[in-house]
Amino acid sequence: MTKRTLIAALVVALLVGYTATGALAETAADSKQVAMDTGWVLLAGVLVMFMQAGFAMLTAGFSRSKNACNMLMKNLMDFCFGTIAFWAIGFGLMFGAGNLLFGTSGFFLQDTGNTFASLDWSIVPLECKYFFQLVFCATAATIVAGSMAERTKFSAYIFYSIAITAIIYPIVGHWVWGGGWLAKIGMWDFAGSTVVHSTGGWLALSGAVMLGPRSGKYNRDGTSNAFPGHSIPLAALGTFILWFGWFGFNPGSTMALVPEIAHIAATTNIAGAAGGIAAMITAWWWFKKPDVSMALNGVLGGLVGVTASCAFVSIGSAIWIGIVAGILVVLSVIFFDQVLNIDDPVGAIAVHAVCGTWGTFALGLFAQDKFAPGTTGNGLFFGGGWKLLGAQCLGIVSVFAWAMATGFLLFWMIKHLVGLRVSREEELRGLDIDEHGMEAYYGFQIFTTE
Amino acid sequence: MTKRTLIAALVVALLVGYTATGALAETAADSKQVAMDTGWVLLAGVLVMFMQAGFAMLTAGFSRSKNACNMLMKNLMDFCFGTIAFWAIGFGLMFGAGNLLFGTSGFFLQDTGNTFASLDWSIVPLECKYFFQLVFCATAATIVAGSMAERTKFSAYIFYSIAITAIIYPIVGHWVWGGGWLAKIGMWDFAGSTVVHSTGGWLALSGAVMLGPRSGKYNRDGTSNAFPGHSIPLAALGTFILWFGWFGFNPGSTMALVPEIAHIAATTNIAGAAGGIAAMITAWWWFKKPDVSMALNGVLGGLVGVTASCAFVSIGSAIWIGIVAGILVVLSVIFFDQVLNIDDPVGAIAVHAVCGTWGTFALGLFAQDKFAPGTTGNGLFFGGGWKLLGAQCLGIVSVFAWAMATGFLLFWMIKHLVGLRVSREEELRGLDIDEHGMEAYYGFQIFTTE
Amino acid sequence: MTKRTLIAALVVALLVGYTATGALAETAADSKQVAMDTGWVLLAGVLVMFMQAGFAMLTAGFSRSKNACNMLMKNLMDFCFGTIAFWAIGFGLMFGAGNLLFGTSGFFLQDTGNTFASLDWSIVPLECKYFFQLVFCATAATIVAGSMAERTKFSAYIFYSIAITAIIYPIVGHWVWGGGWLAKIGMWDFAGSTVVHSTGGWLALSGAVMLGPRSGKYNRDGTSNAFPGHSIPLAALGTFILWFGWFGFNPGSTMALVPEIAHIAATTNIAGAAGGIAAMITAWWWFKKPDVSMALNGVLGGLVGVTASCAFVSIGSAIWIGIVAGILVVLSVIFFDQVLNIDDPVGAIAVHAVCGTWGTFALGLFAQDKFAPGTTGNGLFFGGGWKLLGAQCLGIVSVFAWAMATGFLLFWMIKHLVGLRVSREEELRGLDIDEHGMEAYYGFQIFTTE
Repeated sequence: MTKRTLIAALVVALLVGYTATGALAETAADSKQVAMDTGWVLLAGVLVMFMQAGFAMLTAGFSRSKNACNMLMKNLMDFCFGTIAFWAIGFGLMFGAGNLLFGTSGFFLQDTGNTFASLDWSIVPLECKYFFQLVFCATAATIVAGSMAERTKFSAYIFYSIAITAIIYPIVGHWVWGGGWLAKIGMWDFAGSTVVHSTGGWLALSGAVMLGPRSGKYNRDGTSNAFPGHSIPLAALGTFILWFGWFGFNPGSTMALVPEIAHIAATTNIAGAAGGIAAMITAWWWFKKPDVSMALNGVLGGLVGVTASCAFVSIGSAIWIGIVAGILVVLSVIFFDQVLNIDDPVGAIAVHAVCGTWGTFALGLFAQDKFAPGTTGNGLFFGGGWKLLGAQCLGIVSVFAWAMATGFLLFWMIKHLVGLRVSREEELRGLDIDEHGMEAYYGFQIFTTE
Repeated sequence: MTKRTLIAALVVALLVGYTATGALAETAADSKQVAMDTGWVLLAGVLVMFMQAGFAMLTAGFSRSKNACNMLMKNLMDFCFGTIAFWAIGFGLMFGAGNLLFGTSGFFLQDTGNTFASLDWSIVPLECKYFFQLVFCATAATIVAGSMAERTKFSAYIFYSIAITAIIYPIVGHWVWGGGWLAKIGMWDFAGSTVVHSTGGWLALSGAVMLGPRSGKYNRDGTSNAFPGHSIPLAALGTFILWFGWFGFNPGSTMALVPEIAHIAATTNIAGAAGGIAAMITAWWWFKKPDVSMALNGVLGGLVGVTASCAFVSIGSAIWIGIVAGILVVLSVIFFDQVLNIDDPVGAIAVHAVCGTWGTFALGLFAQDKFAPGTTGNGLFFGGGWKLLGAQCLGIVSVFAWAMATGFLLFWMIKHLVGLRVSREEELRGLDIDEHGMEAYYGFQIFTTE
Repeated sequence: MTKRTLIAALVVALLVGYTATGALAETAADSKQVAMDTGWVLLAGVLVMFMQAGFAMLTAGFSRSKNACNMLMKNLMDFCFGTIAFWAIGFGLMFGAGNLLFGTSGFFLQDTGNTFASLDWSIVPLECKYFFQLVFCATAATIVAGSMAERTKFSAYIFYSIAITAIIYPIVGHWVWGGGWLAKIGMWDFAGSTVVHSTGGWLALSGAVMLGPRSGKYNRDGTSNAFPGHSIPLAALGTFILWFGWFGFNPGSTMALVPEIAHIAATTNIAGAAGGIAAMITAWWWFKKPDVSMALNGVLGGLVGVTASCAFVSIGSAIWIGIVAGILVVLSVIFFDQVLNIDDPVGAIAVHAVCGTWGTFALGLFAQDKFAPGTTGNGLFFGGGWKLLGAQCLGIVSVFAWAMATGFLLFWMIKHLVGLRVSREEELRGLDIDEHGMEAYYGFQIFTTE
């Protein structure tokens, strides 16, 4: 062997060795990255799953005790039915390959290799994507239970929660997150102010309108009687659980373990805080007292509001988004109740529909390219012009139209097929007895009263 | 230096460099892997620890308010005593080197290098393994409190929770997870349908039998009086917390951060959902109403059922496992109550013993080698024949025999040493007053009733 | 090209290649490490954030139902105001570059590159550090609400929670964690027995003294009347949530994903368990019954006690720290109540001030260098002499002096500016009605009593 040959061999060895080291390291690193991302997204999804407990406590607490079992059962069952329906149908409609309106493949998680290209940007396993998206879907369904509380038949609830998780929500999701037409147009909704919250909120509105108010809620002159919730501690617990879960909802929507989750957590948290303060002050000014229910809903409104833009805005902007959301919650609750006489026992429409809409709009105002270069670009307040805001408005309007239209159709169908509302007698007696044959607080003993 | 020498030196440098790079990268990667796995297993363990809150809320909610403090205190204290007992004795008996029946070393976490070889498959630190296994052990202990609710002396409870966490549970654990005889025979139980839930459930059965029913529970003709729980909201909250915690229980049982946790989370969740639906429908058919308690227990039954096989079965199989578990819960509650007149206030035997048994059996039917190659192999329904099913049945029977025998012995000893049951007067007055000198809801004020 | 040149080029290529591989791998690894650490610290922070729910449930449960809304609202609002105040002012005072007493830069998270050098030891993004430190700050503020429960004006509460989160707590934090004088002196407090818990606890003491006891609490002869909490289930839930959150509080204080979190979790958990057992036994001996409230507070006392030293002590030492803390809780509650007649409705002073002090002192006794080489060194019991213990005592005394002085000044100012205490009439009617215009359990229906 000549030296030249030896050297050539050495060069080859060097290159091979170098490449091999790199490739091996890359493969190992990639598989580690998949595991890391899976751990993060799964834990985030688990936090969001726990929001079901939050909604259960919140809506049960804001209801009267005679309907508490019913509220709990609805929250439990929409997650149960949603888990199956979203696996069988919803996930395929939302993320499966299809057209600009809906997916046409991927039902039962069947993946033929390229079925879920719309989610290829995340490297976590398909079942992790399914789980994470499922808990979002279930959130949208659960929202509806709130506005329709205390008067909806349980069998009707099962029908509509299946319809929402299998069809209505996934189609909106496809538009924005599944490569559908709103995504193409340039509408952005990072974690679902519109996709999850407005969709749920507008469905809640259509349901509340179709049902009509609870017996005795409104007087002939249009004035409203307060039906306070039976347990503010449960409602407060629910709000804390929801806030806790939101740290999965928003930061988890990266679907990857990246340092940016810190920024998202910070904007999310501060918007919730600002929303709580703003709602408390607004309520203090309007009702002359710092109402606890309003403060709780204000926190939720702030969190809903920042959900669309949490990855794209500064902490300062997040505060403004939260403040406006907190004010909007109080004014919307008053507006829907006292002006429109639409009876929403827990304030779901104000929190989710109104603040979801505000949050989607606010993204068009406050987004800054620097937080996620190459995504939203700058919003109106940061020199980005009207284009982004226009796309956001189109998204808001089209989701409103879709959710209201399908909501009315769905509730109309249910009304004529199985009935939507319990009888007046049952409503007065409470749904727990007639729908479920039980009481929430059987034989509750009071030993002493002082 | 000749060129030849130079080249030779270069080759050596190359090889050394290459190896060194690899070794360094490997060491760094390994230490990172340890940190990642530790983070995952610890967080999973923390979720499981929170299940103590779930059991506390569930069992307090399903009890009468006069015994609520007692239930809460038992849940708190079995975790306190279990933490110490499992550290001092249980962990060594379960995982320490020993024989096929129990470990004989590793008490107080003393590790002489090869003491815990049965857990060498996980690279997390020993204290992480201890913590993760502890929270499982405490779960088994807590289950027992449910079936023995509302009539067991608090001092008796302390004795038996120490005995369970120090000895009875760890020995079962050694058989299956600590390299004991059931592991050798080829029985599989991924996250503890048998090890945790059936063990706890059969102990709960032996305790309920030894105690006898609550005063007034059964009439002379064998018919049963309902003693409904005093707070369904607490029970529902407990169920949601347990479901939440199960995402630590099952996916965390990988004891490593691997992408497979996504599959495990998906099967776990869908089995719980299917269990809830199946139990609701079964109860609707039997009781003519969709009973909330049954739906809650159905979710738990589905989760217990899939715990053994969550890593080895498809999502479709998990649904079937959940459905059967949900039906079994309702039928078992009725069977134990109305046929055998065994009084189990919260349904712990139905949920944990029956569904744990079903889940362990179902692994032998539904397991598929492809989900974890080289572990269970295929179950009966997937062409694997009867061998796996046979091993599962042997596991089921032997754990039943062990738990029932030690349970009866333990409760018999406690009965004769400190007494097992409170007096009839104390039972009627409630355990809170006499055992703890307090009330769960002192001076609860009702301002208005409508 | 001569062979020599070729070989030289090859050497260069080799070295460049080698270095490049290393550098690339290092960069990738570093960015992964940042992501991993961020994921861990963020999730830990989220667990700590959830402790707000724990405090809310604990303090509401231990209060009378007529003040429950007020307690919930305070817990909610101090986190809302704290989020803003700590972002704007507190974080800069605590960690911004400045002097040995406080930071003078970094307000509104403005970072000019070297502003937050005191936190450079952690590689997570600044916003992650802010979030993690914020939830600690909010914990200190929330503690105060407990001792001042059932008689403090809501507007006063807002003022003092802002003052604590913006100024009082951050300055203590600067001394110990922000490179201040106590850190220089060699005082150690791993996760905040003193920084968080004693600070909160001494402020709670100053507040309780300034307010005076609740109407009717003490008789003329100095004997005390019990005002039991209205919901032990809520209090127990709160305790479980706090225990759950402590797994973020202590292990998360590594601010990095390292295997040592396992040791910290194990010491934390076992100290809580030992505290619960010790308090139960102490209460059993003193009151003749195993009081549930005392057991709950004992767990918390144990957790507070081990917070300073969880990373530096053995499991065995952690048990001793927990046992002493559990005993101290019971004796302190009795001492403050019956000897000093200082009215602390939830036992916040005993749990946080006393056990925080004990824990800080205990670090000087039980620390072992081997658990974190190059930090604390050995404590007195492990041959380290008195130096560490001296520094700990100096820290204890100076934080006591600071918190008591600023606390009295603050509450004196509030008293004269907006008033600190509600009127006697309002107190008797309950704060919920007059402060918030609502009831915690409106129209709570009792269907049956047996």
